[in-house]
Amino acid sequence: MRPLSINIITSESNSMIKHVKSLSIKKYREKHRQFLIEGLRMVDEAIRHGVPLEYLLYSDHLREINGGSEMLKELPENLQVYNIPDKLLRQLTDTETPQGLVAVAKMQDTNISELRAKENLFLLVLDRLQDPGNMGTIVRTAEAAGVDAIVLTKGSVDPYNSKTLRATMGAIFHIPIIQCNDDRQWLDFVKEKGVRIFASGLKGSVDYCKPSYEGNIAIVIGNEANGVSEELLNLADSVVKIPILGRVESLNASIAAAILIYKAVEFRRFLKD
Amino acid sequence: MRPLSINIITSESNSMIKHVKSLSIKKYREKHRQFLIEGLRMVDEAIRHGVPLEYLLYSDHLREINGGSEMLKELPENLQVYNIPDKLLRQLTDTETPQGLVAVAKMQDTNISELRAKENLFLLVLDRLQDPGNMGTIVRTAEAAGVDAIVLTKGSVDPYNSKTLRATMGAIFHIPIIQCNDDRQWLDFVKEKGVRIFASGLKGSVDYCKPSYEGNIAIVIGNEANGVSEELLNLADSVVKIPILGRVESLNASIAAAILIYKAVEFRRFLKD
Repeated sequence: MRPLSINIITSESNSMIKHVKSLSIKKYREKHRQFLIEGLRMVDEAIRHGVPLEYLLYSDHLREINGGSEMLKELPENLQVYNIPDKLLRQLTDTETPQGLVAVAKMQDTNISELRAKENLFLLVLDRLQDPGNMGTIVRTAEAAGVDAIVLTKGSVDPYNSKTLRATMGAIFHIPIIQCNDDRQWLDFVKEKGVRIFASGLKGSVDYCKPSYEGNIAIVIGNEANGVSEELLNLADSVVKIPILGRVESLNASIAAAILIYKAVEFRRFLKD
Repeated sequence: MRPLSINIITSESNSMIKHVKSLSIKKYREKHRQFLIEGLRMVDEAIRHGVPLEYLLYSDHLREINGGSEMLKELPENLQVYNIPDKLLRQLTDTETPQGLVAVAKMQDTNISELRAKENLFLLVLDRLQDPGNMGTIVRTAEAAGVDAIVLTKGSVDPYNSKTLRATMGAIFHIPIIQCNDDRQWLDFVKEKGVRIFASGLKGSVDYCKPSYEGNIAIVIGNEANGVSEELLNLADSVVKIPILGRVESLNASIAAAILIYKAVEFRRFLKD
């Protein structure tokens, strides 16, 4: 369906343009609970998944992109759409090729208590992960593996920054992300629900292939430089270790996450057979 | 040991400076069979591993970096060392913080026939992989997993570009990289040696957890957009598939590689027990 009306903005000093620009900064994303979705593929993925969009801005450059004109025609009827000069649009994003399109979306807040009734809960906890690319790749891997939700501890990189969003390849619209300012928020839930915690650690005592990953589980992946915090290592039911056979000190955090997640998935898949 | 003498260069038009600059371009790296190693950590790793260095250039900024002065004192005696202005050094690298140090290294060419006598050979083949970050992360993972060598098919991203080198975290100095301009080079070897080929494919017919990964094996990972070539898929003994349980189309190539590599490693580790 075609949107009912398309508004035109041409001025840099327009208050909406200023607001959109501010959303490239974490502080303002958190204040307004909004984030930017850039480019045709990501916006399309967001719309198809029903992500609540506040409004959409495009430049005429969008029509030159494969699928751009079609997309404009098929936008939801109730979506506010603004046409802006391409020069202005390029100021709103940090992508080199923003494909003439940016949408402002509402963050979807998930409360961990919503997971209370879930059987065989599979949580992934990212403990102060820093690299946006790692965060995005892990979100993509977790959704691929059927993980139920991702918990981010305080001090983790913002999952709504543009680099992370791109690396998720749209997975961020599918998997609930729970940002915790206090570890107690998720630790209390985990304890109450009987979730077993498997923390990743180079000094782990348990070969990651050995545990039984059945039932309610949480896999914890740590900060790139320092790993999982001492406090969480102490609270974990197992500290699991991926063997390093060659001459490197460690694995990339997104790689370690993938190996552990897919090991748990394997265990759970063949349990069902 | 302190190098015998330190030469000083101050001019941009110095022929060595021009040569080093040219090595940021793939064509010149291939022509001269040389590449650049940037930063204290990477250069240190290279020296410790005995990577043949042609010469080293540093600026006085290196002394301000933690460990920088110590490194200068401990450089191998026979290494040619040049002191250059920091402004000049910054032009030689694409790193934002080059840490005042860049070394020119010889590429170490490995011929696949050198692997002929290796028992239980574990090869990783990257088929036209494009992303420098993926390439680097995969090299790091492969070395961690004890893979014997990495074969790159024609059209793969250059493993000696600076982004890839950084992402390998030094692993590229440890694991042999075999660049093949013709697939026959490695396919003939693989056939002769009786190496079984496991190609990764979304349309694979075999669950990646099922095969027995014993003996001489090669795991093939494909191009990010198009996967493993049809020709290689047809030649593979098995096309293995990692299940996607969520709403994403695929896994990142470095993630798929890690999951397959560590599955094979697991199989081989417990075979030994």
